Amino acid sequence: MKINHKRIQKAQHLMKGQGMLGLMIMNHDDYQYFFGETRVQPRAIIPAVGQPIFICFKAEEQEMRQAFGAEEIRVFIHVGEQMIDVKNSFQSLLGNLPSGALEAGSKPKVGMQMLFQTPAFLVDLFRKINPQIDLVSSAPVMDELRMVKEKEEIELLRQAQEIAALGMDKLRELLEPGRTGHEIATEVTYEMMKAGASGTSTPLHINSGIRSCWIHGKVDQTEIQEGDLVVADLTPRFRGYCANLARTFVVGSPDKKQQLLIDTYLEMIEVTRKGLKPKVTGGRLDRWGKEICDKNGLGEYHIGGISHGIGLRFEETPAQTILPNHRTVKLRENMVMTIGHTILAIPGFGGVRFEDLYLVTKKGGEILYEYPMNYVV
Amino acid sequence: MKINHKRIQKAQHLMKGQGMLGLMIMNHDDYQYFFGETRVQPRAIIPAVGQPIFICFKAEEQEMRQAFGAEEIRVFIHVGEQMIDVKNSFQSLLGNLPSGALEAGSKPKVGMQMLFQTPAFLVDLFRKINPQIDLVSSAPVMDELRMVKEKEEIELLRQAQEIAALGMDKLRELLEPGRTGHEIATEVTYEMMKAGASGTSTPLHINSGIRSCWIHGKVDQTEIQEGDLVVADLTPRFRGYCANLARTFVVGSPDKKQQLLIDTYLEMIEVTRKGLKPKVTGGRLDRWGKEICDKNGLGEYHIGGISHGIGLRFEETPAQTILPNHRTVKLRENMVMTIGHTILAIPGFGGVRFEDLYLVTKKGGEILYEYPMNYVV
Repeated sequence: MKINHKRIQKAQHLMKGQGMLGLMIMNHDDYQYFFGETRVQPRAIIPAVGQPIFICFKAEEQEMRQAFGAEEIRVFIHVGEQMIDVKNSFQSLLGNLPSGALEAGSKPKVGMQMLFQTPAFLVDLFRKINPQIDLVSSAPVMDELRMVKEKEEIELLRQAQEIAALGMDKLRELLEPGRTGHEIATEVTYEMMKAGASGTSTPLHINSGIRSCWIHGKVDQTEIQEGDLVVADLTPRFRGYCANLARTFVVGSPDKKQQLLIDTYLEMIEVTRKGLKPKVTGGRLDRWGKEICDKNGLGEYHIGGISHGIGLRFEETPAQTILPNHRTVKLRENMVMTIGHTILAIPGFGGVRFEDLYLVTKKGGEILYEYPMNYVV
Repeated sequence: MKINHKRIQKAQHLMKGQGMLGLMIMNHDDYQYFFGETRVQPRAIIPAVGQPIFICFKAEEQEMRQAFGAEEIRVFIHVGEQMIDVKNSFQSLLGNLPSGALEAGSKPKVGMQMLFQTPAFLVDLFRKINPQIDLVSSAPVMDELRMVKEKEEIELLRQAQEIAALGMDKLRELLEPGRTGHEIATEVTYEMMKAGASGTSTPLHINSGIRSCWIHGKVDQTEIQEGDLVVADLTPRFRGYCANLARTFVVGSPDKKQQLLIDTYLEMIEVTRKGLKPKVTGGRLDRWGKEICDKNGLGEYHIGGISHGIGLRFEETPAQTILPNHRTVKLRENMVMTIGHTILAIPGFGGVRFEDLYLVTKKGGEILYEYPMNYVV
């Protein structure tokens, strides 16, 4: 639990370039990135100039000052008044702006993450009570800061992936006809938590039979059958960092179609791994994948999105299956990307996915933690 | 997995009253409420007139038709195009509106849940590509429908609470100095999943020592100390329904201040339970709680929000600590409410919370599943 002043300074530099008055942080990943831990209700302002402002409940004030050694902590008592503290904080930041700092008629900008952790009603409320502010996406600042990973972050991602591997070992041990996804997920979750995972960043996927076609997935009471394709995707979180390990298994011997899907997927991974170099885009990686599928007669089933960024968020920039304009984001050295995100599925038959984490290097993707590709159980 | 046509018909009736063209469903709880199951990416439209429209990926189409026996399923291939399907669906619904159905100059309304599961960027995207539509909160329809619980729902909530009780038994067994919250949470999660929980609806809270002051909480590597107050809040989910069982423990013998906090909290619960009758408001319940705190010399530490609705969402209407205007929502018979949501904490010292589920009846709150209030371990 230590405030990362270096990252804050970098963010402040980027904010000035964007003409932002500050960042309003209401999500776990940015909060942890700057402050070394998160809270169930993360709320802070990082002004372009000056110290961060924390906002917490009155009962939590002393504990928070102890934890952060932070000088400026705003407190509030009733839920609902928090936004008043936010408003007052921005009012005072506005008051400190040198005259002439803004172009005539333009409002000062404040950046906020607009993704899954930011509910629509809070954005509406912020805009309503801060009409003098232009609320914009914080992505131009935060992506620049977080896309390329620091050494310590890469190590934490590797450790998270190692925990996922322990979960996958347990899953392989239990995978047999008659068991349900829920039964297996119970043991796998237990195994990963014992190894240090705080939980998982997405619901576990253990999709069997026709459900292996799902792009996403879930765990339920469906019994695994002889001959099933089973797609398992494990996403333990370790000290905030997200793992992503997916494997497909055939319960029994693969038939011809199953084998073709698996072989094609492994070929796509190999091509993507070679291409995971600076300046390559996700769009380019997908075109290579499409060529492999075409060659193997599966072109009509190809779905884009073979790779995405990962870190404190399960899908970080570039995350082209969430935000299509990320298809043109250029990779940089020391980004950490998954390979194997997309499902390759023949509708009504079944699908496959194998996914691991890689470091982007000049020589192509370097796997963070090696796990066997065996698919027969 | 069956579509609940009765609920859909009721919703359609309510939509007409609100002048809504339809509901856009993108959250798990409403999706499960109408269709009996949820999916990782729940997407459906319920028009005010006609059959629901499901939106899914192409690879999932056959499985979905099989699961729902649904006639109208829209499919999409690339992520990003889903919103085009949504747009086209609403265009065709608009085309079917009888002429003169809208007042001059007014746009047709579509309702959407605006809470934590609805990310800001999707709302912005929806508004951008559907400029002919006035996107509004679906609360006037969904609250009316979901606030009062059906018999089957009450039974599922009771079962969820029974699973929480098994978790709490395990927690009590393990609670001792030197253990960490994470260690205990690992075993408690395992116990609850073995009993059928799909997971938890919020992160588990096991807050010890000064962290017992937290309004929310988390599990971490802090070791429990002799003399600590420990606030544990268990929230397993069973078939979509959310449990909420909280207990406070003293590791050792309570000192005077700890005892006063506990006695005061139990007194607040008793008064609230008696008041949990039709027509009473959350604001009223809190004023009673404040009187108790005042009487015991703890008035300055009182925080509102002793009770909230619960069901397929962890906090459902009325949820006054999220939406302050819910303080005036009147209770109705057969609503299920928690009692014990708020923390009673002396800043820097520690806090307490005891929480259970109750059915609103004419005679006051009827507990759904009784669990002992013992607080000494």
